Amino acid sequence: MKYAVPVPPTYALAITGSDELFPVNRVYCVGRNYAAHAREMGKDPDRDPPFFFMKPACAVVQASEAETAIPYPPMTANFHHEIELVVTIGKGGRDIPVEQALDHVHGYAVGLDMTRRDLQLDARDKGRPWEFGKSFAQSAPIGPVHPASSVGHLSSAAITLTVNGQPRQSSDIAKLIWSVAESIAYLSRYETLEPGDVIMTGTPEGVGAVVAGDLMRGHIDGLGDIVVRVAA
Amino acid sequence: MKYAVPVPPTYALAITGSDELFPVNRVYCVGRNYAAHAREMGKDPDRDPPFFFMKPACAVVQASEAETAIPYPPMTANFHHEIELVVTIGKGGRDIPVEQALDHVHGYAVGLDMTRRDLQLDARDKGRPWEFGKSFAQSAPIGPVHPASSVGHLSSAAITLTVNGQPRQSSDIAKLIWSVAESIAYLSRYETLEPGDVIMTGTPEGVGAVVAGDLMRGHIDGLGDIVVRVAA
Repeated sequence: MKYAVPVPPTYALAITGSDELFPVNRVYCVGRNYAAHAREMGKDPDRDPPFFFMKPACAVVQASEAETAIPYPPMTANFHHEIELVVTIGKGGRDIPVEQALDHVHGYAVGLDMTRRDLQLDARDKGRPWEFGKSFAQSAPIGPVHPASSVGHLSSAAITLTVNGQPRQSSDIAKLIWSVAESIAYLSRYETLEPGDVIMTGTPEGVGAVVAGDLMRGHIDGLGDIVVRVAA
Repeated sequence: MKYAVPVPPTYALAITGSDELFPVNRVYCVGRNYAAHAREMGKDPDRDPPFFFMKPACAVVQASEAETAIPYPPMTANFHHEIELVVTIGKGGRDIPVEQALDHVHGYAVGLDMTRRDLQLDARDKGRPWEFGKSFAQSAPIGPVHPASSVGHLSSAAITLTVNGQPRQSSDIAKLIWSVAESIAYLSRYETLEPGDVIMTGTPEGVGAVVAGDLMRGHIDGLGDIVVRVAA
């Protein structure tokens, strides 16, 4: 069978210690999932619980300890870093109980939810969709996936981001408002999860702008580093 | 190379008069692109221009004149039909001038932007992302693509939807606020368009709820009909 246009590429993540890849189906992101970040965004985490948004599969960029470049995207003057714990889903399901949710995890990785903050805040304040702020191509550099079968499940670990060697974000994933299991359970009430789905679990406080040439280093204890350059 | 999880399927649309398929990369949707629909959503189209949101590729369901079923999705009590003109992109580009935008069109189809209205309005009113209302699996039944090389470009054509034979939506694509060319040009300032991208151009007035068992028939003059059943 011929195709009228080229078959879209399958976006995939590397897996540590393996030649296998993790092909990405959908990318879900949790918004305002650390209290201190909710506050820096002008929201009260006690009144305003987290929520989900999405990125397209083409947002994914394979990152690693070796430097990877991403473009500075168009139509923004406020391009922000957000360091996040990333969860890959290995087993699908719907209405997954919290107690069983970690059985659906394939693995964990370090990722960046890059954001056109000016476009996102303009949409938020107008009650408009967030896609132009969040869901652009190459907006989600993600490091190699560490299978839960190797590293277990993470409930506390330091999460940090530096820009040009200067500390910007520093927290612990123990401070997630919705734990990984709670995020999976909540999401699976609204959508049937599929193998290949990815959940970016939200960013701690300290988000800020990067400019062309900046070098970001993201780290989560146990999951290593990713090094991402904003292309000049 | 082995894969840790099954490679995600490539979602594709049928093409009339062809064994070829159109593999779907991304699905962009225009919001409030008919004045009468903007008004029924409580907005003033003169003060509040259209905008874009997205659906994941797995939203696409191949529809046709033969009846196709879609599920009634979870977590909604107000599942709405939105009949739309759908444009498939055959040639990518960035910062595409309006005058050249139609050169990037592969073809046209009839589609439905199915919406969990309660979730969408709740998100809108809270300044939250719209994905749970708009971007769920199987939310975009789309008929066969009529290549522009066969049918030319459409600037006016009746667009209608019936539910169980009763008229619900009836307008003309000449009433689009952003024409097809303007939508392509605008979008390409924010994102580099790729072959395989799909644009759902917005719905006219008359949106409303369907329930399990309802039969929707969407029609655009020159592009035929799609018949979609809400599964019981």
